Amino acid sequence: MAKYCVFGGLGFIGKYIVNQLRSEGHQVIVIGMKMRNLEDYYDWNGLTYLKLEQIMEGVNGVINLAYASTPKTSFDDPITDIKDNLPSIVNFLEWMSLFSVKRIVMVSTGGAIYGNTNENPISEAAATNPISPYGITKLAVEKYSSMYCTHKKLPVITVRPGNAYGVGQSPFLGQGFIATATYSVLDQREMKIFGKNGTVRDYIHVKDVANGIIAALKKGKIGETYNIGTGRGASTKFVFDYISKLARKNGFFSPKVQIEKLRPFDVRKNILDSSKLKKDTGWYPQVSLEEGIEEYWNHSLEAFKSKAIERVLWA
Amino acid sequence: MAKYCVFGGLGFIGKYIVNQLRSEGHQVIVIGMKMRNLEDYYDWNGLTYLKLEQIMEGVNGVINLAYASTPKTSFDDPITDIKDNLPSIVNFLEWMSLFSVKRIVMVSTGGAIYGNTNENPISEAAATNPISPYGITKLAVEKYSSMYCTHKKLPVITVRPGNAYGVGQSPFLGQGFIATATYSVLDQREMKIFGKNGTVRDYIHVKDVANGIIAALKKGKIGETYNIGTGRGASTKFVFDYISKLARKNGFFSPKVQIEKLRPFDVRKNILDSSKLKKDTGWYPQVSLEEGIEEYWNHSLEAFKSKAIERVLWA
Repeated sequence: MAKYCVFGGLGFIGKYIVNQLRSEGHQVIVIGMKMRNLEDYYDWNGLTYLKLEQIMEGVNGVINLAYASTPKTSFDDPITDIKDNLPSIVNFLEWMSLFSVKRIVMVSTGGAIYGNTNENPISEAAATNPISPYGITKLAVEKYSSMYCTHKKLPVITVRPGNAYGVGQSPFLGQGFIATATYSVLDQREMKIFGKNGTVRDYIHVKDVANGIIAALKKGKIGETYNIGTGRGASTKFVFDYISKLARKNGFFSPKVQIEKLRPFDVRKNILDSSKLKKDTGWYPQVSLEEGIEEYWNHSLEAFKSKAIERVLWA
Repeated sequence: MAKYCVFGGLGFIGKYIVNQLRSEGHQVIVIGMKMRNLEDYYDWNGLTYLKLEQIMEGVNGVINLAYASTPKTSFDDPITDIKDNLPSIVNFLEWMSLFSVKRIVMVSTGGAIYGNTNENPISEAAATNPISPYGITKLAVEKYSSMYCTHKKLPVITVRPGNAYGVGQSPFLGQGFIATATYSVLDQREMKIFGKNGTVRDYIHVKDVANGIIAALKKGKIGETYNIGTGRGASTKFVFDYISKLARKNGFFSPKVQIEKLRPFDVRKNILDSSKLKKDTGWYPQVSLEEGIEEYWNHSLEAFKSKAIERVLWA
């Protein structure tokens, strides 16, 4: 049994990582913004009363998923993106340098770090030209991590996941296209697609992302950067049509789709080459996009029906 | 006659730029941290009472040299480096988007942006792997500039100068090796050299830097990045020995030199390939390192002697 610490472990991806590590029998300490709900995920209270030294005592590995912005929010307010993320990440790296943690995984972004590129699938060696403030601060975080790795021998591994999706992802948050498209169909809300045929993304099931991050934590090489993607690109148009097909089978109409101009922070096409992670750790993605979309649809449909029943019962 | 606005125009490089533009008959507005001394450089008072809209009225070009840190200070306090630089630069770019400025030159760094590389001389296409927080925030600034250029059509040109030196540079500030070495010899202070033979730098005379920045402003291509260097590398050891030789001619001893270990933020070797700037603008560096060192030595020696006379007169 090992002891792991997950910063940002109460978010969408974080929960899957924590569950996976716990199911393997490890002790997991979760540190997150939503600490008030800690008991939901972790059966040990009073964490806030402990000092970081006590928390970090004997920790084998750390994963940091904490981030306070998305491409959309960073674009609306680039200065808050800077202030909420960069100083705290530098503090985090500085703190970590005080403890003899064996391995630290910093979760970056495969979706925003490269920007628009002619190289698809994209390898980790590709140029990094982010087109959103979120991508720029994430790039800065990668460079700070690398600096602490070089100067203070901090054992950092960086991962760049593609577009994670899966049960637990909330719709209408400005990211998470599959969640938003599914609930748009269920709620019969008009749907926006940016770009004529939409954008192309490397959608990857959250379980595959979680396992990829854990693989990097356990077997990745210190100082290296790893993409976590499927290597398959799908357009938002394809995803929406696939969900619509499932919807029609269940008696739903596809909602009206509004084609909008690409927003400045929308990368046109993003497909990740993850052969380095596969080679170094043996990880590979296991859930196909179709399976994953169906799982999300079925789960959301059940939730939708039980709410519909609730609505009838309370009417 | 054109109207130019120079942010950070009261610093070492800024003063040369302002003087050059004024000598060409242009109107120059200077905005800097040391505004209280504005009348020393600019014969027009009351700037602080004007709104930015009035200042920017009819401005043909803007140069931004303002920066609140150096590699050394950023290493001592990376969070202050973030807070003092990034939000204000984003604000600057946002403001500039409000005015129809024709050309904006953002002054980055050729010395810190690339980090340690096997490619010397370094072209602008080389990977950017800074090893100091200063280099990391400068890289972020380049990416923000590029984002505003793409998204808001802000006409930005980025320049990356090498190690500027020349009359007007103050010694003992943690950067400016030629100034520090010269005054160490004059004051007979012990001198530190980092690394066995020192580090190798592309020392470039401040007039050549100023002319390179002005050339980029007038003739550089929007959206491009230009190195400003000589293409020649000189070790700190070579520079120190050259100054010592001048010193001995004038009856000074070389002070004791302490060889110290390379600091983590010291790039080992940095020589810039500036062929792109030469090709696009016709600029080329005109002052040889030996001429430049001699000019700085002679100027400092005169200043040293007049202070020595002062000391005698007041004794």
